[in-house]
Amino acid sequence: MGTSVYEQADQAKTILDGVRQAGGDPDALLERLRAWQIETPSWGFADAGTRFGTWKQASAARTIDEKLADAGQVHKYTGICPTVAVHVQWDFPDGFDRKVLTVAEAAGVKIGAINPNLFQDQCYKFGSLASPDRAAREQAVRHCLDSIEIGRQTESQVLSLWLADGTNYPGQDDIVERKHRLAESLRQIHDAMPASMLLLVEYKPFEPAFYHTDIADWGMATVLARQAGERALVLVDTGHHYQGQNIEQIVAWLIDERMLGGFHLNDRKYADDDLTIGSIDPYQMFRIFDQIVAAEQRLGQTLPIAYMIDQSHCIKNKVEATIQTVSLAHELLAKALLVDRGALRDAQATGDVVGAEQTLRGAFFIDTRPLIGYVRQQMQLEADALAAFRASGYDERAAKSRRGSA
Amino acid sequence: MGTSVYEQADQAKTILDGVRQAGGDPDALLERLRAWQIETPSWGFADAGTRFGTWKQASAARTIDEKLADAGQVHKYTGICPTVAVHVQWDFPDGFDRKVLTVAEAAGVKIGAINPNLFQDQCYKFGSLASPDRAAREQAVRHCLDSIEIGRQTESQVLSLWLADGTNYPGQDDIVERKHRLAESLRQIHDAMPASMLLLVEYKPFEPAFYHTDIADWGMATVLARQAGERALVLVDTGHHYQGQNIEQIVAWLIDERMLGGFHLNDRKYADDDLTIGSIDPYQMFRIFDQIVAAEQRLGQTLPIAYMIDQSHCIKNKVEATIQTVSLAHELLAKALLVDRGALRDAQATGDVVGAEQTLRGAFFIDTRPLIGYVRQQMQLEADALAAFRASGYDERAAKSRRGSA
Amino acid sequence: MGTSVYEQADQAKTILDGVRQAGGDPDALLERLRAWQIETPSWGFADAGTRFGTWKQASAARTIDEKLADAGQVHKYTGICPTVAVHVQWDFPDGFDRKVLTVAEAAGVKIGAINPNLFQDQCYKFGSLASPDRAAREQAVRHCLDSIEIGRQTESQVLSLWLADGTNYPGQDDIVERKHRLAESLRQIHDAMPASMLLLVEYKPFEPAFYHTDIADWGMATVLARQAGERALVLVDTGHHYQGQNIEQIVAWLIDERMLGGFHLNDRKYADDDLTIGSIDPYQMFRIFDQIVAAEQRLGQTLPIAYMIDQSHCIKNKVEATIQTVSLAHELLAKALLVDRGALRDAQATGDVVGAEQTLRGAFFIDTRPLIGYVRQQMQLEADALAAFRASGYDERAAKSRRGSA
Amino acid sequence: MGTSVYEQADQAKTILDGVRQAGGDPDALLERLRAWQIETPSWGFADAGTRFGTWKQASAARTIDEKLADAGQVHKYTGICPTVAVHVQWDFPDGFDRKVLTVAEAAGVKIGAINPNLFQDQCYKFGSLASPDRAAREQAVRHCLDSIEIGRQTESQVLSLWLADGTNYPGQDDIVERKHRLAESLRQIHDAMPASMLLLVEYKPFEPAFYHTDIADWGMATVLARQAGERALVLVDTGHHYQGQNIEQIVAWLIDERMLGGFHLNDRKYADDDLTIGSIDPYQMFRIFDQIVAAEQRLGQTLPIAYMIDQSHCIKNKVEATIQTVSLAHELLAKALLVDRGALRDAQATGDVVGAEQTLRGAFFIDTRPLIGYVRQQMQLEADALAAFRASGYDERAAKSRRGSA
Repeated sequence: MGTSVYEQADQAKTILDGVRQAGGDPDALLERLRAWQIETPSWGFADAGTRFGTWKQASAARTIDEKLADAGQVHKYTGICPTVAVHVQWDFPDGFDRKVLTVAEAAGVKIGAINPNLFQDQCYKFGSLASPDRAAREQAVRHCLDSIEIGRQTESQVLSLWLADGTNYPGQDDIVERKHRLAESLRQIHDAMPASMLLLVEYKPFEPAFYHTDIADWGMATVLARQAGERALVLVDTGHHYQGQNIEQIVAWLIDERMLGGFHLNDRKYADDDLTIGSIDPYQMFRIFDQIVAAEQRLGQTLPIAYMIDQSHCIKNKVEATIQTVSLAHELLAKALLVDRGALRDAQATGDVVGAEQTLRGAFFIDTRPLIGYVRQQMQLEADALAAFRASGYDERAAKSRRGSA
Repeated sequence: MGTSVYEQADQAKTILDGVRQAGGDPDALLERLRAWQIETPSWGFADAGTRFGTWKQASAARTIDEKLADAGQVHKYTGICPTVAVHVQWDFPDGFDRKVLTVAEAAGVKIGAINPNLFQDQCYKFGSLASPDRAAREQAVRHCLDSIEIGRQTESQVLSLWLADGTNYPGQDDIVERKHRLAESLRQIHDAMPASMLLLVEYKPFEPAFYHTDIADWGMATVLARQAGERALVLVDTGHHYQGQNIEQIVAWLIDERMLGGFHLNDRKYADDDLTIGSIDPYQMFRIFDQIVAAEQRLGQTLPIAYMIDQSHCIKNKVEATIQTVSLAHELLAKALLVDRGALRDAQATGDVVGAEQTLRGAFFIDTRPLIGYVRQQMQLEADALAAFRASGYDERAAKSRRGSA
Repeated sequence: MGTSVYEQADQAKTILDGVRQAGGDPDALLERLRAWQIETPSWGFADAGTRFGTWKQASAARTIDEKLADAGQVHKYTGICPTVAVHVQWDFPDGFDRKVLTVAEAAGVKIGAINPNLFQDQCYKFGSLASPDRAAREQAVRHCLDSIEIGRQTESQVLSLWLADGTNYPGQDDIVERKHRLAESLRQIHDAMPASMLLLVEYKPFEPAFYHTDIADWGMATVLARQAGERALVLVDTGHHYQGQNIEQIVAWLIDERMLGGFHLNDRKYADDDLTIGSIDPYQMFRIFDQIVAAEQRLGQTLPIAYMIDQSHCIKNKVEATIQTVSLAHELLAKALLVDRGALRDAQATGDVVGAEQTLRGAFFIDTRPLIGYVRQQMQLEADALAAFRASGYDERAAKSRRGSA
Repeated sequence: MGTSVYEQADQAKTILDGVRQAGGDPDALLERLRAWQIETPSWGFADAGTRFGTWKQASAARTIDEKLADAGQVHKYTGICPTVAVHVQWDFPDGFDRKVLTVAEAAGVKIGAINPNLFQDQCYKFGSLASPDRAAREQAVRHCLDSIEIGRQTESQVLSLWLADGTNYPGQDDIVERKHRLAESLRQIHDAMPASMLLLVEYKPFEPAFYHTDIADWGMATVLARQAGERALVLVDTGHHYQGQNIEQIVAWLIDERMLGGFHLNDRKYADDDLTIGSIDPYQMFRIFDQIVAAEQRLGQTLPIAYMIDQSHCIKNKVEATIQTVSLAHELLAKALLVDRGALRDAQATGDVVGAEQTLRGAFFIDTRPLIGYVRQQMQLEADALAAFRASGYDERAAKSRRGSA
């Protein structure tokens, strides 16, 4: 194989020299890359599939303990994933147990966002927080209050709410009454949260509802979050958009409206495919990071955005896929930090469309893998996270211990 | 040919009997259908095309006088089109002339919405109200103020604002600074309007901007309209949505948020095709009307929505196409008014998805052409508007007088 | 409720009078409507859901016996559903048992298309007929040969092949080698079929494969079917298209190329939603029927097309939903048969776009429910199939006998 | 500014060393990059716009002489654009004049593909080669025969056929009769070509036809090309696809079916935006090149594909935009040539989805700008083509001489 591209420290230095020459601060850049964090999802380590079936992997995690152990591996090799989002229904099927905090600590991670489940119980057939059935709505709100309580115990700062609510056929229910019920439910949940917690309201244009989804786009999420209260913000899942929609514009607007709470990061080609970041369109993900970096420079502060992964790894090895996605996110963020903002502003100011595009896209074309390798080495990690994990034998051991004992 | 379906008065009576039996008020229904109005666009009577060329028609209107005459024909045969939207640049190339009021009166119509043009002048190459070029922004605002002045003189109540603003390439301009400039421009325009005038802010996801459009969706239009002032509302062009987007849901939400100002009605298959209403998907247009009728019943009032047509007739005869589109809109509104709302509510309340859908779609399947024919006869008009116009010889006369004199 | 619209025999007669006046043959029309058949799917009577969960219904069928009984109900009330498509894996989990023929006979139906399952077994993780794994390909071919054998015993004439084959990530496999493997597998299957059997090759642009699907569109299905042999034709699932794609054009081309074998009928808004026919866009389904009727008149024969339903009823009652979908298909076919083809040709020949569209869409706007009611009465059935089924008490009895015994 | 990234020859050498270490042939790679050619379009140097208006640029070319001069500049700086596609209607409004060959020679280029125009004349209102109007069809065929004659005189090897044919409304014309007329017209054109000429049949799903386009996808183009004759192949315009469609798969299939004739290269976000290559999704363009490189390695030969640019530069400077697009195409081809095919095959063979993707995408992430700079220096050109053109003062001189003299 020869030297991994991540190990080419001289390439990293060439990049850093370029930053210095362009009047930038290489140390601040490195510090930002070391400090940036992205949260892994517990469900990303379990078996996954589509409506047509689930693919089984020998090393797939089956319990919250195994998921935390796997998440710990991702953090061990990438250095930027200290927290793990949990899914109440799947991770605590028998209720929350404080022992999980010990397990997490042993794995080197903490519990991050709390994700209630409002779509699996049969009572949610016609919706949860927007259901025409009062009992279903009450159960849904209660489940959220329970989730808040779990969050209190895990010191989580984010309640992350995705709803499957919607209808499958025209006429099935009253769209406006559903909106009213949903707003009322969200207010109750918001008001039950401790002051340290944020309610993130996710939107999605379709699936699993076929005809209409109650929170279909960022505009609806914004209306509802504003009506819920001041600690309610919008959650952008990068896979939840219409074909051709400009996601980075939505991100820029949400930041400007002080309504962006966080991300569920993934990629997709058609629907909500939950693929690893940048697997279909890395340039789009770069442009999203670019809007964030631009906003941070405009506002003179690092924005308190919750970067979370939401992916299902059907056929990829799960820990590997998560390391791969974290690594690429890191590399794309680095590209966005390398945009020569002065040159970009100059080109924009003079109507030099070609020059402005060259400046932006030029940063995307810089190979930042050596830079991320260098950052990892600064953090006392191996430069090539994926190779290091593969060399560790963890997956083989996991497969051995987990397979057959299911 | 035999009897036109519009002339089958017995069928109309069967429908009205059904309304009575279901506990409805046939007279109120008829009154609503007689009172409903939809505005025709002056530009719908002129030659149109695509970026690949313009198709010429012998009878196409070339001047505001001819356009008003043609619009008068549509009103003459349909009875529900008393106003005509004008386009400042195209209709008043040499400035506004009060003589147009006399011409309109002679044609039996009035001037309706005023449409500024903020996309044709070369100064708008990088945008109008959002342009990075101060001079371009100022010219754009000034043009809007001039348009408001025209509206004052024509006693128009609507300033209808569609912007082509956006960028073609990533990096071309700063998306957030554009948002701020746009908000500032809209505030200026809003504050210059007389109290009787509404500012309608239109959104569109793409075209002519290729990469990002400054007002891309209803959420952005809502944010900007709220920031502009209380007489700013959102304008929904039915052709300006992503593929698969649920337009009736957006309409329902805008009404509920008190932000729906009006419509630009048309149909499309892929892009912003500006086809006649219901030519591609009549059921969707019906569902939009259904949401409006449902809201009106919920709120106990007829909503002050500006129903306007925005269509370009490339190959259809223009007056005929406009009569066709007005007629179908009328027929679809009638179908929406025929929905048995009590039965629908009952089916919804009991989770009877099949029954609810049958109730809604059943109304769509009622052939309302005889009912509209009957309504026209009540208004002293021919039952079959299109046939009557065709029989009048107007188009042949227009072709003769207009052709060759261009 | 009053009289059902299906029972308005006088309305049916008005329609038939219109046919006669336009020079048509009402008896031939009625005969065509009585003779037309559409196949129900066994899986449409079982519980269904999405990747987020399955919704349980008390009366859902659990075994092939119950599915056939339910399918028998649909045929009993609609009169045009004498055959039932079966799904090998789900319907014969323990292998084929000839007893099923007796059960079918008792239910008043026969076995129709045989659907192999090439997506559930873990060996199909990287595909079935196109898999890079020879053992997986061989298992897939063997399963198809077994399915052919079942078809022989059930005297089925259609082997209906849908593949989930594809890849999830760029680079995952070699697209061209997959094509070659697929072609080879299809040839083997084709050559193993008895002369009376057709191989229908289905296409689908996405799901469950996320990046590329091996048979993604009608063009690929046509290439493969032609390479497989002369008894291989293309199967059009109406939900398997890109947004905005013109399905009726594809149908027209496939007929003209002698490559249309049959349909999987359903409706959708975004993805492959498997909704009841015409629930989202009834006009599109009408236009598909219109192309078929036009082709039949051009060719002077009824085309041997396999009309099959492929739907999953997540929240609708399953037998009701199937009756609803069959009824609407019948009504839409009737509308297509009512198109005044002479008038349409005349309008087309003179470039009268408005007139041509009015002629086509005018037929769509005719309310054919009374006509279908009349046809049913000719067939000694209740005019309103859905109401008759609801009144029968079958569903309540099924719920009682099936619930709890699962 | 410092050193241009294109001038970093040491980086180029690092890349070439990597190729050598992986068992590749750096010289063959460099030779392929020097020998590759891409054709510029004459219309890309003229003013362009959308249906809403045309943006004027001072230096825009107005005549075929100016267009050839501009194209010569692109070739002068990139070294890989020796031919220029011409558009019969726009470039030879007064008929073909052999003097153009002298002008081309002076500019250092030759005439490439001949593009007939079958959409501008009013007679094409209802189509050209598929029109129901025999006179229109005959005029269209005649124009193609004239174009072939021009091609004979310019020694062009490609007749590149894009049709705007289609309908705007359901019912407007008979889809199947249009198919038959089109097939007949194409056969006539094919048979009139000299043996050295290829007929490339382009497809496009929509625009300018709104309801149906006669050649809507690659499947239809393939059917028609096969019916036209053996020198008819398919032309892939990268902007002419449905949202989410996998273009590289279509390219791979067309190559495998021996039906790929060439490309019209550009990028787009929603519709047929004709943007510069890779401006929206560079990874997709890379994947297309990857399929070509893979096919060439499989077949052991360089494929005779016509690489042509089809772009309209509304707001970008036209020569600059063309140099930018050619440069990026060159860089993306280089990335595709850098894919480690052995490692890719190994990963595919072992089901290592993560590894296969890393291998493919890893090549995309290599910054090939230094490599292209090195290739240019080998060709005695400046390493940074765009910077060199900007420094030349050509555009300022063109603006001065062309502006005002229009």
